[in-house]
Amino acid sequence: MGLVVQKYGGSSVADAEGIKRVAKRIVDAKKNGHQVVVVVSAMGDTTDELIDLAEQVSPIPAGREFDMLLTAGERISMALLAMAIKNLGHEAQSFTGSQAGVITDSVHNKARIIDVTPGRIRTSVDEGNIAIVAGFQGVSQDKKDITTLGRGGSDTTAVALAAALDADVCEIYTDVDGVFTADPRVVKKARKIDWISFEDMLELASSGSKVLLHRCVEYARRYNIPIHVRSSFSGLQGTWVSNEPIQQGDQKVEQAIISGVAHDTSEAKITVVGVPDKPGEAAVIFRAIANAEINIDMVVQNVSAASTGLTDISFTLPKTEGRKAIDALEKAKTAIGFESLRYDDQIGKISLVGAGMKTNPGVTAGFFEALSDAGVNIELISTSEIRISVVTRADDVNEAVRAVHSAFGLDSDSDEAVVYGGTGR
Amino acid sequence: MGLVVQKYGGSSVADAEGIKRVAKRIVDAKKNGHQVVVVVSAMGDTTDELIDLAEQVSPIPAGREFDMLLTAGERISMALLAMAIKNLGHEAQSFTGSQAGVITDSVHNKARIIDVTPGRIRTSVDEGNIAIVAGFQGVSQDKKDITTLGRGGSDTTAVALAAALDADVCEIYTDVDGVFTADPRVVKKARKIDWISFEDMLELASSGSKVLLHRCVEYARRYNIPIHVRSSFSGLQGTWVSNEPIQQGDQKVEQAIISGVAHDTSEAKITVVGVPDKPGEAAVIFRAIANAEINIDMVVQNVSAASTGLTDISFTLPKTEGRKAIDALEKAKTAIGFESLRYDDQIGKISLVGAGMKTNPGVTAGFFEALSDAGVNIELISTSEIRISVVTRADDVNEAVRAVHSAFGLDSDSDEAVVYGGTGR
Repeated sequence: MGLVVQKYGGSSVADAEGIKRVAKRIVDAKKNGHQVVVVVSAMGDTTDELIDLAEQVSPIPAGREFDMLLTAGERISMALLAMAIKNLGHEAQSFTGSQAGVITDSVHNKARIIDVTPGRIRTSVDEGNIAIVAGFQGVSQDKKDITTLGRGGSDTTAVALAAALDADVCEIYTDVDGVFTADPRVVKKARKIDWISFEDMLELASSGSKVLLHRCVEYARRYNIPIHVRSSFSGLQGTWVSNEPIQQGDQKVEQAIISGVAHDTSEAKITVVGVPDKPGEAAVIFRAIANAEINIDMVVQNVSAASTGLTDISFTLPKTEGRKAIDALEKAKTAIGFESLRYDDQIGKISLVGAGMKTNPGVTAGFFEALSDAGVNIELISTSEIRISVVTRADDVNEAVRAVHSAFGLDSDSDEAVVYGGTGR
Repeated sequence: MGLVVQKYGGSSVADAEGIKRVAKRIVDAKKNGHQVVVVVSAMGDTTDELIDLAEQVSPIPAGREFDMLLTAGERISMALLAMAIKNLGHEAQSFTGSQAGVITDSVHNKARIIDVTPGRIRTSVDEGNIAIVAGFQGVSQDKKDITTLGRGGSDTTAVALAAALDADVCEIYTDVDGVFTADPRVVKKARKIDWISFEDMLELASSGSKVLLHRCVEYARRYNIPIHVRSSFSGLQGTWVSNEPIQQGDQKVEQAIISGVAHDTSEAKITVVGVPDKPGEAAVIFRAIANAEINIDMVVQNVSAASTGLTDISFTLPKTEGRKAIDALEKAKTAIGFESLRYDDQIGKISLVGAGMKTNPGVTAGFFEALSDAGVNIELISTSEIRISVVTRADDVNEAVRAVHSAFGLDSDSDEAVVYGGTGR
């Protein structure tokens, strides 16, 4: 008998029927002999409705009060879920983030978990209860104020609780069957991944895959908590994310050369044109951006034209930060000494992720060939040990993803579908 | 400069507009130089909607989880109210019952306040903030579980906080102008009362007046916290409830002989027929009722018929408890030895309340005469030092209330309207 942490998202508990369905699934886990701790998000559209109310009373809702407001959402879903479980004849107790010991810093609306002290949860499950914990929320260490963790925060709550409780697994229930080799809405032949390493999942998450957020996977890797991403509707086996490949039948699932293709059209590109090509210039530019609290993604500096001694520096960043970045750079224009700024939000990023590319030199070439064959022009390139990313026109992204997915034999019904093991591509 | 506790009910904060209107009123009090602590209920129908959700997932929602659910309502209204105040340029912080130090017993759904430790509230107002506190909720002393105080609990929260903070006044804002000499929906000529003593208010509350609940007034009397009941819409002076009459202009408002007429049609009457007229019989009956956790109101035993040695015992109780009481008595039939039970839920209670009746012997006679003149038949009578109550047919109640109200000169445009001072009635 082990301890399982399960997390259910808002779409799984969107209404009373959903809550009752989830309650049955939780009770099944309990009947199978597990201790069960459940992390739950707010019901369906609750959070959006609360945000709408907030905007009606105040154009810029304040951080502390906004968090107090939003956390009402999980309070509702968790209490209802506990009631639904009790109605099935099992004992359940719900706990707020604060009661569950989720201690955070004081950065309202996007707090980070500092520590988890799950004494009450441990006691509750040891007494035979199913413990239901509010996702997405905590309490600040210094001021004891209610905080929220930002988008995807419930997944992080689940992983952090699993780590603090030394759980056997953290099951993330969602409305898809798992992690896919590409976004199934773009690539019809995308396959569900049975197992993926923390490293590859981290690269996918930071390249545009939405199933798990980077922060949550990072936390799981640090504490070595296996994550099982699966559907709350189908009950099928989903995707395991862990250090070691899982067992399937009497075989271990082997490390894939290529885990998947991710894409992202939420970024824009800024090019700083005509920067003096001398030491320290890049530092001045990115200090200005950092001071504006903007996270950037890819950075590329072109070779300078020898005749002018000037170069161009391009970087990508979330579109939502575009205005702020341009303002910050304009303010620093004298210090940097650039000629002009170019802003382009019609770009897309395609990334190929897989630990196998470390030992398979043909991957990079194959990636560029596939894009070339599809007639897709590459604007920027950036690589890590286990990822290659390119920036293209936004209009080309879907076609590019399909071309790459197919070229690397990831398509589900292709003869090339077996991508596990050393096929040497 | 003093400290004011203001309480706003759900109808005052039913929507974003209501919240903004209330925010303005709060800021006005702050501008007048007061420290302001605000207790707020859930918005309009929120609580009913949450109850509806609970019933969809579980026919009998469990106490602990039900409280967790319901307290989401105040969390929403208090956060929105704090945002609306900040939007007016003033600092505000919202606090849950638990954060505000409202410590209760563990009786879920109708917890009682044991203690209030308002350290965080004191700090918040001393730092210049307007503190917004969730009404209706607290945290249990032993288990640290979230509790609710039951119907009208926000008023009690406000009075308890006012006592703990040694406030100058507790202002209860509602959707009526104050406490009236009778229910204005029944008596068109009912007058707003300028001042009423705690004692008279307690009797009115326990006789069916809905403006303030008994528990809240009892708390205010114990800690001698003046209550000012007033409208959140009109801004007019309302009704003061306190030990000492208030000053109006250069005159003190004097003690009224009769404070008002209350009525109640929420009760039923049970008559235990043919009870042996011997010591200990009543004790057996009411122990059976008490063991079923039913609160009773009036009790009347008729003189026994000498020939049979049997008597009848009647009592009134909330209609909602009728079924439970009948069951409890049937179970105890052998022990009690009665002949039969009669259940009647077509009754009403009319009560005349006023400290003046202690020293004005004509009041009781006048009350009965007024009912007689109106052709209302009396079924039961019960009195306290400052109250006379009768039970009549439910159909007669409105007519009886109007008759008594008029007979005691309480009508607003009557020549007899001056009921302050020793008119000797």
